[in-house]
Amino acid sequence: MADNAPLDAPLDASLGAPLDGSLDLGLDGPALTAALVDFPSVSGTEKPLADAVEQALRALPHLTVDRYGNNVVARTNLGRAERIVLAGHIDTVPIADNVPSRLDENGVLWGCGTSDMKSGVAVQLRIAATVPEPNRDLTFVFYDNEEVAAHLNGLGHVAEAHPDWLEGDFAILLEPSLGEVEGGCQGTLRVFLHTEGERAHSARSWMGSNAIHAASPILARLAAYEPQKRVIDGLEYREGLNAVRIEGGVATNVIPDACTVVVNFRYAPDRSMEEAEAHVREVFADCGVTEFVVDDHSPGALPGLSHPAARAFMEAVGGSAQPKFGWTDVSRFSALGVPAVNYGPGDPLYAHKRDEHVHVDKIRHCEERLRDWLTARLP
Amino acid sequence: MADNAPLDAPLDASLGAPLDGSLDLGLDGPALTAALVDFPSVSGTEKPLADAVEQALRALPHLTVDRYGNNVVARTNLGRAERIVLAGHIDTVPIADNVPSRLDENGVLWGCGTSDMKSGVAVQLRIAATVPEPNRDLTFVFYDNEEVAAHLNGLGHVAEAHPDWLEGDFAILLEPSLGEVEGGCQGTLRVFLHTEGERAHSARSWMGSNAIHAASPILARLAAYEPQKRVIDGLEYREGLNAVRIEGGVATNVIPDACTVVVNFRYAPDRSMEEAEAHVREVFADCGVTEFVVDDHSPGALPGLSHPAARAFMEAVGGSAQPKFGWTDVSRFSALGVPAVNYGPGDPLYAHKRDEHVHVDKIRHCEERLRDWLTARLP
Repeated sequence: MADNAPLDAPLDASLGAPLDGSLDLGLDGPALTAALVDFPSVSGTEKPLADAVEQALRALPHLTVDRYGNNVVARTNLGRAERIVLAGHIDTVPIADNVPSRLDENGVLWGCGTSDMKSGVAVQLRIAATVPEPNRDLTFVFYDNEEVAAHLNGLGHVAEAHPDWLEGDFAILLEPSLGEVEGGCQGTLRVFLHTEGERAHSARSWMGSNAIHAASPILARLAAYEPQKRVIDGLEYREGLNAVRIEGGVATNVIPDACTVVVNFRYAPDRSMEEAEAHVREVFADCGVTEFVVDDHSPGALPGLSHPAARAFMEAVGGSAQPKFGWTDVSRFSALGVPAVNYGPGDPLYAHKRDEHVHVDKIRHCEERLRDWLTARLP
Repeated sequence: MADNAPLDAPLDASLGAPLDGSLDLGLDGPALTAALVDFPSVSGTEKPLADAVEQALRALPHLTVDRYGNNVVARTNLGRAERIVLAGHIDTVPIADNVPSRLDENGVLWGCGTSDMKSGVAVQLRIAATVPEPNRDLTFVFYDNEEVAAHLNGLGHVAEAHPDWLEGDFAILLEPSLGEVEGGCQGTLRVFLHTEGERAHSARSWMGSNAIHAASPILARLAAYEPQKRVIDGLEYREGLNAVRIEGGVATNVIPDACTVVVNFRYAPDRSMEEAEAHVREVFADCGVTEFVVDDHSPGALPGLSHPAARAFMEAVGGSAQPKFGWTDVSRFSALGVPAVNYGPGDPLYAHKRDEHVHVDKIRHCEERLRDWLTARLP
């Protein structure tokens, strides 16, 4: 989970070598998670783990396996009416003195990637190994470089080169969500709002015009803005419009001629990119903005929970879905026309942290719920 | 003139050696100005010029000469009822391909220091050499390092070590003022106004509190502030309250927890430092400022034009006085209890610029007015 990362960055990293080049899919979910954590795969170094995943999957006769770079895609081909995609990234953030893994007496497994998201990958591998005849065709996607810059993301590369590999009626990303279903994701738009003035010595300020003062209506508009809560498929999305940076000033005795407010708009996924940008332009229409520059823009993804496969999944796993606020790879599936949700055993609050951990019960629970859903007799 | 510098910084500098180690005070004002310009004395390298000034003054029997560092002070001791101080700095900003000096066919002398302020120093030296029996006792002050950091300023060093050398009833700084009298100077106060918030991921902005938005009332107050015009001794001072810098932001996906607005208050010299600070505190009293830090504060200087010596000077030089907005060494005299004004031949708009110049008529005019005033029969 790249965008939803907590604010703490890992402090340092050390890469161990895998103890063995292979993975034993006969291990139970918690033990397989531990084996995956002990098989370091910091972003950029995923090849050995991708090799091991490919090797383990090729040993399963009910699957066909494709590989593109360090991305591995395996599929059943049973001619079922629906196809479900189970996807997860195999990379982690840098290790922070938290490998190898450690299981404590309370059933908590500690280590880099326990939550984000080797426990989810373990569940994928367990389903792949133990459900040879699912009620819906299955596609398993294991990809690299999720924790780094978006252009490196393996899922994006596969979507670009082999979009057919990702086809399906519904996708589940096994990102950490504490066993809750998180639907869709919000869009994110970043704009630079510039104001202009005219330089002058601050002792003769009336000779110039102050660009920082000119930004006052922008901040007033931001401070007064009331973000919307929009309900989609029963999920309430909370939008936000925020200054994330402000910069202005030349020298302490000069009236500044330029000021920039960087604004981030997080918006509910029923707004299109065009609508989101138009909304922000409208908010600041009369605020003296001299230049409006779109710096970055990623669309949201609708939760898609009204799809029959999604409804059946929700019934099978129980509980109620939660909206996803941050931007995730769910929207890559959405862009391919595949509704997608996050559903994984990890705890997102501990992702990327030195004390990252997962409750082994959550791993078992998640695996069982998925197996039940994928083996139940269909009406 | 340090504080009133135009915004252009000199682009490069090259130091020539003086053609000769001596100064000929028999030259007329424009020629002496040219000789001084051709005798480079960028801040920090004034010693040869200070030596030459000292040597030239010691040759005048009607003066006693003191030296402290590269600062030279010469005085008449005629027991007159009043004492006038004529002061000027001998350093310049770095040379910008504009030395040696060049006199054009329109009577304009070009070169580094022509305006700021070797033309003024030439007038000082001419008065010293040609007015052996002035109607008021005279003190001539030549000092170094005016164009650099305030703590290096030679006038400040003399004021600290030998305040008696600077005693007088009235002081004239021959800083560039285009032959107009500029009275007093404004005070300048710089404060940091901090606002605080609470960090959160910008996708979940309601979990935090935005420090940039919290700065909105500060900018609104600045934008709405109506600076005062205050009349003192017939001079109208225009105050100004301006943001000169603003900074806030952690990362583009983080709600910022801190923002700082740097505000500069330029105030009329009838406000004390305490009053000025109290005024700024009051302006921002209800703006959500979590910390108010005084970063820098220099008091103003009253014009002192009601003093009899100042009135007589004004009558002699004619014209009307103008207020001085920037901070100048006038306030160092003011702090010593000596009312002071700026009055020099240079054009302040061209100080520190590559095309710095002075009209030779202004040099002659300034010298003549001072000589007339200092040799007139007193009532």
